Amino acid sequence: MTNETLASLSEADVLSRIFPRLPAASAQLLGPGDDAAVVAAGDGRFVVTTDMMIHGPDFRLAWSTPHDLGWKAAATNLSDVAAMGAVPTALVVAIAAPPHTPIETIEGIADGLRDCCAALAPGCGVVGGDLSASDTLTLAVTAFGDLQGRAPVLRSGAQPGDIIAAAGTLGDAGRGLALLFSEAVTEDGAPDATSAARVRAAAPELIAAQLAPSPPISLGAVAATAGATAMLDVSDGLAIDAGRLARASSVSVDFDSAELGAHPQAVLHGGEDHALLATFPAATALPEGFRRLGTVREGDGVVLVDGHPHDQGGWDPYRGWDGAAG
Amino acid sequence: MTNETLASLSEADVLSRIFPRLPAASAQLLGPGDDAAVVAAGDGRFVVTTDMMIHGPDFRLAWSTPHDLGWKAAATNLSDVAAMGAVPTALVVAIAAPPHTPIETIEGIADGLRDCCAALAPGCGVVGGDLSASDTLTLAVTAFGDLQGRAPVLRSGAQPGDIIAAAGTLGDAGRGLALLFSEAVTEDGAPDATSAARVRAAAPELIAAQLAPSPPISLGAVAATAGATAMLDVSDGLAIDAGRLARASSVSVDFDSAELGAHPQAVLHGGEDHALLATFPAATALPEGFRRLGTVREGDGVVLVDGHPHDQGGWDPYRGWDGAAG
Repeated sequence: MTNETLASLSEADVLSRIFPRLPAASAQLLGPGDDAAVVAAGDGRFVVTTDMMIHGPDFRLAWSTPHDLGWKAAATNLSDVAAMGAVPTALVVAIAAPPHTPIETIEGIADGLRDCCAALAPGCGVVGGDLSASDTLTLAVTAFGDLQGRAPVLRSGAQPGDIIAAAGTLGDAGRGLALLFSEAVTEDGAPDATSAARVRAAAPELIAAQLAPSPPISLGAVAATAGATAMLDVSDGLAIDAGRLARASSVSVDFDSAELGAHPQAVLHGGEDHALLATFPAATALPEGFRRLGTVREGDGVVLVDGHPHDQGGWDPYRGWDGAAG
Repeated sequence: MTNETLASLSEADVLSRIFPRLPAASAQLLGPGDDAAVVAAGDGRFVVTTDMMIHGPDFRLAWSTPHDLGWKAAATNLSDVAAMGAVPTALVVAIAAPPHTPIETIEGIADGLRDCCAALAPGCGVVGGDLSASDTLTLAVTAFGDLQGRAPVLRSGAQPGDIIAAAGTLGDAGRGLALLFSEAVTEDGAPDATSAARVRAAAPELIAAQLAPSPPISLGAVAATAGATAMLDVSDGLAIDAGRLARASSVSVDFDSAELGAHPQAVLHGGEDHALLATFPAATALPEGFRRLGTVREGDGVVLVDGHPHDQGGWDPYRGWDGAAG
């Protein structure tokens, strides 16, 4: 550590430290440095999604490394692109940070963005961004994708009789978060880095699923090509997100409990895995990486398990967050 | 006021209050409600820029109305699209707000986004977004544009002999901010709503230039069509931004003091006007809305006034902001 902070360096110095770390995008026609970037849109359309990560409600610096933050900010946005059946092409990234933030924090975020793109969406890169001062460390990522001439796969296309299937972990991210809240806090409940490191060593897969998830980005386009009738990104838990798909498609979704594994409550209610949930016509051979979870039935937006209605629960970004809680 | 806050309403309720207020985009192929939006990119490319507005460094709620915030967040991003010579097509908008924020604040921001698009970039609309909890009210806008088959107008194309010209106000936004800091604060320097209203009534144009600017968005594509060789958005003051153009183009820019008006220091150093600064071949008849400011000369990135070197000054997002200052 060099004791260099955002306040002690010029904006040009900070940018010169970040730019070389950022991944280049194959679709980039004009990159950072002008008023705006220019990105190729091969089929005359582009997919776009945006998502913020906020210190406090969305991450704790005692638990996440800067690399984790960059990785997760990229992964969660790439996942929304993949859930349309598109191939991610580019990101723009706005970071707002307190002036006392060490430059190494911003460099680590940039490294996480780069490594996530390289691992999950090769060819996708950062084409632009913004750097601001804020009391609250905030990452705002906007991601773009190429449908390659295909129709987008919406939430609304599921048909009775379809298979419902998932790719990626379900429940692990929620179990990882539960571990952090129970075992990586001080006696008064504040996030604690030392015990977080211990928890991470003891349960690396669950903690990685929460702090630096690796959703199956490439399988979005694969599912679209295989004929997926509906698809979405499981961000708020399988029950809630299946309910969204069911309501949008005016069907019911019936999960087989035997397919929900050893931790069905975590699978149904744990959020932030960013698995892909997709429906396919019954005769489809599921693409590699997808596993059958159940069947789409006639209905009106209800989620069932073994034919019985399941309480979908609920989640709200403004419940359970109080600034005073740190 | 109904005492309804973000925390007292469900996310679905909040979105149902916001969506009807947002402007539709002509280029929208798929709008809000799925994992991502789909936007038309007529010529197989899209222009993209992103910019955050943060409570504290970028705005004060004692000075700006929610409508002002939505307007300015749109206007500043639209201006970066226009500065490439593109026509703005769409925005995505991420808002992070404290849970106690009244729903009317978010509605006002949405109304400002809508009214700004309608006034400055008809046909441009909001195709997606994100709503998060944060201790710091934050708006992150990403804007898209259509080059309509033209090459983007970069900062780097100015040639010795070109005219340098501007469209839009220069200095007014900085003069408005100076008025707010001198006359719309309490005795201990905190922003004050009552005196801000008095200042706004006394100097409506200067205050509007700062809090809800109306940059000449449509003139970006007009300048490109007229043959502009270089262009950028004047966000940090004419001297700094002319220096950027001069360095990118490896030229010098020589302003005629007679063209800088009655407040040359404000024109040269006041930021946030979002005027368009463009260079045109000497024989060009300037498009309506542009006025000549001087001449591009051979040189190495220097800004001159009447042939004499001018100190460009500097600006840094991490200087002059201290969270404790409120």
